[in-house]
Amino acid sequence: MTVLEPAGVHQAWLPPEAFRAIGARRALVLGDGPLAGTVRDELAQACARYGGSVRPGGDLASADGGPYDLVLAAGAGESLPAVAAAVRAEVRSLGAEIGGEGFVLARRDGVTVVLADEPAGLLYGLFHLVRLGEAAFEDTIAVEHHRPALRLRMLDHWDNVDVHPVMGQVERGYAGGSIFWRDGALRDDLRRVRAYARLLAACGINAVAVNNVNVHTTEARLLTDRLGDVAAIAGELRPYGIRVHLSVDFAAPVTLGGASTADPLDEDVRTWWAETTERVYDTIPDFGGYVVKADSEGRPGPFAYGRSHADGANMLAEALAPFGGVVHWRAFVYDHRQDWRDRSTDRARAAHDHFAPLDGLFGDNVILQVKHGPIDFQPREPVSPVIAAMPATRVAVELQVTQEYTGQQRHVCYLAPMWSEVLGFRLSGPAGPSVAQIAGGAAAHHGRAAHGAAAANGAVSNGAVSNGAVSNGVAELDGTAQTYGGGGLVGVSNVGDDDFWTGHPLAQANLYAFGRLAWAPDADPAAILDEWIGLTFPAFPPDMTGGPDRPRSVLHAIMDDSWRTYERYTAPLGVGFMVRPGHHYGPDVDGYEYTPWGTYHFADRDGVGVDRTRATGTGYTGQYPEPWSQVYESIERCPDEVLLFFHHVPYGHVLHSGSTVIQHIYDTHFAGVEEVVRAQALWAGLAGAGSVPPALHARVADLLDEQLRCAREWRDQVNTYFFRKSGVPDAHGRRIW
Amino acid sequence: MTVLEPAGVHQAWLPPEAFRAIGARRALVLGDGPLAGTVRDELAQACARYGGSVRPGGDLASADGGPYDLVLAAGAGESLPAVAAAVRAEVRSLGAEIGGEGFVLARRDGVTVVLADEPAGLLYGLFHLVRLGEAAFEDTIAVEHHRPALRLRMLDHWDNVDVHPVMGQVERGYAGGSIFWRDGALRDDLRRVRAYARLLAACGINAVAVNNVNVHTTEARLLTDRLGDVAAIAGELRPYGIRVHLSVDFAAPVTLGGASTADPLDEDVRTWWAETTERVYDTIPDFGGYVVKADSEGRPGPFAYGRSHADGANMLAEALAPFGGVVHWRAFVYDHRQDWRDRSTDRARAAHDHFAPLDGLFGDNVILQVKHGPIDFQPREPVSPVIAAMPATRVAVELQVTQEYTGQQRHVCYLAPMWSEVLGFRLSGPAGPSVAQIAGGAAAHHGRAAHGAAAANGAVSNGAVSNGAVSNGVAELDGTAQTYGGGGLVGVSNVGDDDFWTGHPLAQANLYAFGRLAWAPDADPAAILDEWIGLTFPAFPPDMTGGPDRPRSVLHAIMDDSWRTYERYTAPLGVGFMVRPGHHYGPDVDGYEYTPWGTYHFADRDGVGVDRTRATGTGYTGQYPEPWSQVYESIERCPDEVLLFFHHVPYGHVLHSGSTVIQHIYDTHFAGVEEVVRAQALWAGLAGAGSVPPALHARVADLLDEQLRCAREWRDQVNTYFFRKSGVPDAHGRRIW
Repeated sequence: MTVLEPAGVHQAWLPPEAFRAIGARRALVLGDGPLAGTVRDELAQACARYGGSVRPGGDLASADGGPYDLVLAAGAGESLPAVAAAVRAEVRSLGAEIGGEGFVLARRDGVTVVLADEPAGLLYGLFHLVRLGEAAFEDTIAVEHHRPALRLRMLDHWDNVDVHPVMGQVERGYAGGSIFWRDGALRDDLRRVRAYARLLAACGINAVAVNNVNVHTTEARLLTDRLGDVAAIAGELRPYGIRVHLSVDFAAPVTLGGASTADPLDEDVRTWWAETTERVYDTIPDFGGYVVKADSEGRPGPFAYGRSHADGANMLAEALAPFGGVVHWRAFVYDHRQDWRDRSTDRARAAHDHFAPLDGLFGDNVILQVKHGPIDFQPREPVSPVIAAMPATRVAVELQVTQEYTGQQRHVCYLAPMWSEVLGFRLSGPAGPSVAQIAGGAAAHHGRAAHGAAAANGAVSNGAVSNGAVSNGVAELDGTAQTYGGGGLVGVSNVGDDDFWTGHPLAQANLYAFGRLAWAPDADPAAILDEWIGLTFPAFPPDMTGGPDRPRSVLHAIMDDSWRTYERYTAPLGVGFMVRPGHHYGPDVDGYEYTPWGTYHFADRDGVGVDRTRATGTGYTGQYPEPWSQVYESIERCPDEVLLFFHHVPYGHVLHSGSTVIQHIYDTHFAGVEEVVRAQALWAGLAGAGSVPPALHARVADLLDEQLRCAREWRDQVNTYFFRKSGVPDAHGRRIW
Repeated sequence: MTVLEPAGVHQAWLPPEAFRAIGARRALVLGDGPLAGTVRDELAQACARYGGSVRPGGDLASADGGPYDLVLAAGAGESLPAVAAAVRAEVRSLGAEIGGEGFVLARRDGVTVVLADEPAGLLYGLFHLVRLGEAAFEDTIAVEHHRPALRLRMLDHWDNVDVHPVMGQVERGYAGGSIFWRDGALRDDLRRVRAYARLLAACGINAVAVNNVNVHTTEARLLTDRLGDVAAIAGELRPYGIRVHLSVDFAAPVTLGGASTADPLDEDVRTWWAETTERVYDTIPDFGGYVVKADSEGRPGPFAYGRSHADGANMLAEALAPFGGVVHWRAFVYDHRQDWRDRSTDRARAAHDHFAPLDGLFGDNVILQVKHGPIDFQPREPVSPVIAAMPATRVAVELQVTQEYTGQQRHVCYLAPMWSEVLGFRLSGPAGPSVAQIAGGAAAHHGRAAHGAAAANGAVSNGAVSNGAVSNGVAELDGTAQTYGGGGLVGVSNVGDDDFWTGHPLAQANLYAFGRLAWAPDADPAAILDEWIGLTFPAFPPDMTGGPDRPRSVLHAIMDDSWRTYERYTAPLGVGFMVRPGHHYGPDVDGYEYTPWGTYHFADRDGVGVDRTRATGTGYTGQYPEPWSQVYESIERCPDEVLLFFHHVPYGHVLHSGSTVIQHIYDTHFAGVEEVVRAQALWAGLAGAGSVPPALHARVADLLDEQLRCAREWRDQVNTYFFRKSGVPDAHGRRIW
């Protein structure tokens, strides 16, 4: 297999130069099966370019015929080169399993060794070497054990097959059309899907759902007569260890099967799903499973039949179980026809109200897919209490890589710092598990033995992330982790047929970081970014020692804090929304204030914010375990950044920061815009440096113009809105229109 | 020709019963040509149903062979029956011309006589008899002279040939698809177009533009290779005296002709338009002309070439002049990318700023088409000062029959009272011409001689409108009217392929009233409505003597004041907008407040409104002649209903009504909703009465439910918005959310 790069498409974090170090070595690959073949092909391609060589066969008997610089070996075969055999012996002496997707790295006697139990581990090991570059072939490396913290590391594509009249080819897509679908059909040329699979494997993703969770008429048929399209995509993803999943229409027995009901307890319905699922596995034996948005924003679901979400999910789970498939059942269920006059209903409560009572009722292969916050992917939300509320349920956490509410890939907004906060958040306090540990479930638990090894092996040059797959919290999980069935991490993809994959070239970093955080949730977002910079811009000098004007430092200065910059110039203090209805881009402070969507800020001439306390509000704070239940309830203890999410306060309320709410609004909005101005100047300084390709530089420069325009619009609208309401002038006398 | 009613389509104001009186008579029709043929066919069809007879031929020699109940005669032929000849002699003795579309009505010696110079007058006379019903055949009728006040009485269809992805088949259409176009092509079955033409002729309309002023790619080609489609429509309209017009793309020489420029002073461009126009007239000899939206909301225009609107319009006028065609050049030109922060730019000023300096520069067959208000068809605007600013230009006034901003044909909103106010408004004070007189121009002037005759003939039974074609102001126009070239009245059509033509069955009354007001601008809106009720609901008892619960009275109670009801529950005191951006339905107080569209209310915690004074505001009041320039400038003299259009005032400002602005807002919004509640109850009382068809009753009942829901939404959002801002409680303690 040769990876054919689609013409004109940016190579993201896998430019040929990324393979320079491994491509210059003499390599031996031992292992069977397609994934080992992929590793061999990748190495062969790199070696053809950079002068190395790869011993193609699995001929273990002659494997010791060196010399080699690099050995990658999968499986239990004993005929390893001596240096590799020694590494394996050491691993065994530690009593650790390498695990299905894990690998061991070591370097001794001038040979770099990667060992895996399964070929998938070998593939991840290969891309680990790509990240390390020359560092993988320099000093001795003591045994490092790498394995993913989360077993399921998945991207959901909200791609439509037919162009939707309102939502387009990709719902909430900001990077052009779908890479899978075009105008109602599978694309003829799937080379780009293969290239995508390669990028995903290189950051650790192992599952992709290929169609929108809002399953429209044409898309529903992917399950049946258009299954061949899905199989074709699966064929492109498979060589990179990625399983395909499908969003399905809960009403499919009616809409596709001609039945009169989709009642999950109806025998004919169950039979229809069983038979349909069997046909899916006949066609795609490694099919991953179904994704379901049911009884949500108008989609069909079990409520129509008086059944519970557990009834609905379990029916599908039963159909999938014989084949090892899973159901991702989304918890995004709320009343989207709420009356804004009704101050007692609270959309933030909805998922917990619906699902917490069902804990323990879901089948083993049901994964409840929960958005990270209680509302909908705002730049700042508290962590959803549902994640901690269902110890007997496998929970997946859903993040939005596509920047629906975070600048729509026209704004620089590096999201890993937000995700990192979410993944590290401990809903039950310091002694409880982190969000990542809950989503990691058994995987995190099993990984404990490996923790020592990973932690013992330190940082890598180029500022690469801490190698570990295992978060520091794992040890604490002992005894409790078993109660959490892991559901993994799911991201809504930000990719389209745009030449740069993601519209904004710098938004590639979000996709990369998503995968890396799904593998290692405790990795430092700045380190991940540095890793991405090193791969994506191979012409950059390799470190930041040259000072703040070095390209690498410039990119960090633009991106590291860009999420907080975005937060500063948009909706303040966690109150959320204030976006233009429908497309959700740009400001409209009252845009959702009198709508049925349940997203309000209740600003009047005296104050702003939503009272979600038990004492006087909607009682949402009561959905949290201690200590957060008390912290959020208290207007004094509540963190500033989510104050208006939990409390309605006067404009003169003094924050922990010492500022009043109204002055905070003014200050952050002026500051946010200034930060964009600085980013623009920094980026301009990279022009003509030879290290950023001109087309990429121009694209980002154009988008920074738009970001600045839009940030000013946010600043001025928000400041004017609150000045008109409050009458309080800016303490610093700046211009408020 | 037999009029074939399209199956399932409501017959609006021409049900068979409307022809009962004339269909039971013995009629003679004298005159040549297609329109006389239409009159004969109409009579023959009516007689076949109701037992009368019609002498078909133009055999004047034998015309006196009576007996006849009814004679309709067009042309100068002398061989009239004696009674008709006597009427003609009397008309001649009065020294009056009947005029091209006019007719004379009289009844003597048991014979009803309609005389016309041209067959078109005969057609309008026929439909006048339909309106009169039995009253046309009872007592003696002294000579009445009827002629239209406005020569051009036109409907613009904003219909697209291709379904536009956002705007649909009909832009701002609320009655289904287009009656002309469907999915990219002319409809196969044009019977409905014929039926439409008949309805239009019956209310006096004589011109129709068949495509959207926003001319997209496919629609542009109607001018060239798809001209056959236009010809086919013209063929359906022609028998009812209606000429077809076409909206054209100013850039057509480029987009269709392949030229490199559309510069109106370029010789090749002028040649292209001349040749193209000649081909149009080869195909459609009675083609009416072009409608152009140029340099407006992104449409191409002469500005791109550094040319003026006069240059652009005159070029097209020159191409049309040899064939008698006209250009309707829209004055709807403004900056739709305005910065909301910029308080000096004022969209209200734009049309006057652009066009007033061009007065005198337009060709004789250019008609400047001016929206009635300075902004965009709001429920309440002051009259556009442009209408009075261009005495050397033919001005047409554009009204919006389709209810974009007035309830979108889901709300009952009878618009004739608003139009009547506009048409009767005298921009230069009591001594100046009315808007209708300016738009009527020479027609109104020429009509002066007939005025005495029309005024001498009084009201008709069934509450029909005063017969006159001529407004009372005409005499005052003597000496000034000549300076106004009349452009006529243009309405944006509210018709679609809905079974009731207009979505809301009661919205038919707006279409009917538009035509009637174009013919007779000083007609009483309530009388027009009564006329419409009588025709549309033939089962209703013929008068209101039965008391307020008689169906006719009930409809008046629901409809007469429905525009003011709508105004009460929507944006207050002339400030406008406050609608949901994009679709413009339902409330969103701040929806346009921070947008580039130039439509703001500037509400803050202290007050609301737009300062358009010369003293402290945008200076817009200076565009009006005296006395309005002074009246609008003065916060004391400015009429309440447009106060916030001209002034920013504190919430405590006391209106002429004695109420404060804030209390006025609360009071009108509560009152408006109560009026809808009453309308709903009144309509419910018409159920099962046998006088309203059940399907029509059900449709209106459903729509009243929606109207009430939406009116409550307006009430609550507007009241809550202003309560949150002002902090002033309702004086009557009613619920504000």
